Amino acid sequence: MGFTMGAAAAGVRNGTPTRLDVALIVSDRPCAAGGVFTTNQVIAAPCMVTKRHLERGAIRAIVVNSGNANACTGEQGERDAIAMAEAAATKIGCEVHEVAVASTGVIGVPLPVERITDAIASIELRPDAWEDVARAMMTTDTRPKLSRNDCALDWRGARGSVHVRGVAKGAGMIHPNMATMLAFVLTDAILGPTLTGWARGFAADSFNKISIDGDTSTNDTLLLLANGASGLVAEGKDRHSVHDALSQTCADLAQQILADGEGVTRVFKVVIRSAATDEEAMLAARAITTSNLVKTAIHGADPNWGRILAAAGRSGAKVDQTRATVRIGDVNVFESGAPRSFDRERIREIFSTPGLRIAVDLGVAKGKGEAWGTDLSEEYVRINADYTT
Amino acid sequence: MGFTMGAAAAGVRNGTPTRLDVALIVSDRPCAAGGVFTTNQVIAAPCMVTKRHLERGAIRAIVVNSGNANACTGEQGERDAIAMAEAAATKIGCEVHEVAVASTGVIGVPLPVERITDAIASIELRPDAWEDVARAMMTTDTRPKLSRNDCALDWRGARGSVHVRGVAKGAGMIHPNMATMLAFVLTDAILGPTLTGWARGFAADSFNKISIDGDTSTNDTLLLLANGASGLVAEGKDRHSVHDALSQTCADLAQQILADGEGVTRVFKVVIRSAATDEEAMLAARAITTSNLVKTAIHGADPNWGRILAAAGRSGAKVDQTRATVRIGDVNVFESGAPRSFDRERIREIFSTPGLRIAVDLGVAKGKGEAWGTDLSEEYVRINADYTT
Repeated sequence: MGFTMGAAAAGVRNGTPTRLDVALIVSDRPCAAGGVFTTNQVIAAPCMVTKRHLERGAIRAIVVNSGNANACTGEQGERDAIAMAEAAATKIGCEVHEVAVASTGVIGVPLPVERITDAIASIELRPDAWEDVARAMMTTDTRPKLSRNDCALDWRGARGSVHVRGVAKGAGMIHPNMATMLAFVLTDAILGPTLTGWARGFAADSFNKISIDGDTSTNDTLLLLANGASGLVAEGKDRHSVHDALSQTCADLAQQILADGEGVTRVFKVVIRSAATDEEAMLAARAITTSNLVKTAIHGADPNWGRILAAAGRSGAKVDQTRATVRIGDVNVFESGAPRSFDRERIREIFSTPGLRIAVDLGVAKGKGEAWGTDLSEEYVRINADYTT
Repeated sequence: MGFTMGAAAAGVRNGTPTRLDVALIVSDRPCAAGGVFTTNQVIAAPCMVTKRHLERGAIRAIVVNSGNANACTGEQGERDAIAMAEAAATKIGCEVHEVAVASTGVIGVPLPVERITDAIASIELRPDAWEDVARAMMTTDTRPKLSRNDCALDWRGARGSVHVRGVAKGAGMIHPNMATMLAFVLTDAILGPTLTGWARGFAADSFNKISIDGDTSTNDTLLLLANGASGLVAEGKDRHSVHDALSQTCADLAQQILADGEGVTRVFKVVIRSAATDEEAMLAARAITTSNLVKTAIHGADPNWGRILAAAGRSGAKVDQTRATVRIGDVNVFESGAPRSFDRERIREIFSTPGLRIAVDLGVAKGKGEAWGTDLSEEYVRINADYTT
């Protein structure tokens, strides 16, 4: 694919190098690149640096650390993010502005930058160390998040396969509002010079539809790199194929992030219909997936569907409660403005079955939208009551 | 005061009358009345009925039940709410539209209306049974919420005391956006015909500033009644005194609701300064008080202040991170855009001390606002994972 990569243990969090926490992905040639970043007004230094580097043009490498988000770290934070890019640029022989930088971990603690730059220098680059990279990005994630998706091109005599690889990390502060915590999606297809439009669309259809805890990170980053090493130009129908392969990779990574959220035991999908607009449908879907009362009811498999409608009702979306319908799995619990009697054990069973789907018809017009959420468990509280200590 | 009241055990929740769950407050003469109700688009039947009754004019009584919210119950719900008002009107000899109705409890279950109307008929009215009323309103509340506040009038020869009494219930689905779950504030002062303007102002300064779980109830109701039994006209300076006494009563009830929130072990105050506008300051304050990551950090006394700034940053309020300051108790942890080194044990101690105050300066302009929140505990999850069963 023309990408090599590797990871090292720098002891970012507390000085003891017990796990991989710094990674480097290198392309053997300049990549067309695009990215989307957090919409949080408090933006981490690496996001600001990477945004500027993307504006300069092609990208050769991504350097990433976990254990420290380099957010709320002031001007020193920006100098540290640039130092990470410099270390990578020196190692592989490229310009500093050709390196994208990302960080994840605790906010507001100065980066131990020398440990990180030393680690970058020591990284051994190999062609297939995707899992090491994914592991080095983890914080409270319990497993690495990888996705692969190849696609055969066959338009106008193009013959061969284009490869797509993605890595991501999630776990906490997951309520992406542009991209998610960290996701890198790479391909060897030849694509146009800027991929930011695509990245924006992929994020809208994947990461921006999931929520674990309703908190948007300061470090959300989705990077899309295409180095063209396959020699195959993705044009016409092939362009669609590559677009779909990249989009599916983002969707797959988003679902992996969701399932591995902090303390998550159940994942659910919310489908909104008959909203005033698609935007209002998303407001209602997001309000339901982030409601602690809905999340705890799902955790306990408690068929307390009133909370679902109450969350939609406070979301800002218009609801006509005389025409609304709530459907849990295949059971209508509330229909056309009135509660239905239902078998509570059946609902409890549906709540306990993987793939829970909640459909709410707001009874207004034709807007629609969907979102994915997770339950809220005692384990979530335990993880987050004691994160920095 | 010219008010009598009482409560009865109707077995609203499950048919077994083990605790007080229906209450009636009666004025011996018509009251000037005002009210504010939930802004949730899904509005409970009793709120709709009471709104209409307030529009008709004076109020003679409030009837309330716990154990069932009579929300999402369709047209039958509205008939049931009116039946409650009818039962009270028959008992005391007034018009149905002179009775305000309120309900709290599980959503989407038809009201066992006959048990409630039978109970209303059986209630023994006494002059000082405020605590029985407050107890009958409780759901997951662990203690009744009462407030009293008398004020002496002395303007233009008025001599004597005006009395103010308030009762409220809270516990869960507490993120009032107009009023709170249920609060009734009564006085024997002679006040103007409509008190809705005052009610709106009191709610803005008290209930609308607290959040326990970020979910706005379908049944939020604040009712303000003045029956004039003191014979004292509150005019001029006295009008201010009565206004302040009523306002303080609302603030006191709001703090009681906060402290008795589901699973709450700690309460905190957020003060925002230097926002673009007062509205943006409230957005930031509310985002911090509802952030699960902030709430769990406070639960664990984990000095993870980065979450506070991250929540402000995603709130929709403008934040200048190069000028922002975060202060926990009396310690600046982030100042003018850069982290300060601080004694972690000192912060942990502040987090553990009652009266925790978090101040955030957004570094933009002169907008200010404040809000109160609670921690998020494992106990909250346990309570809400198994509420209806």
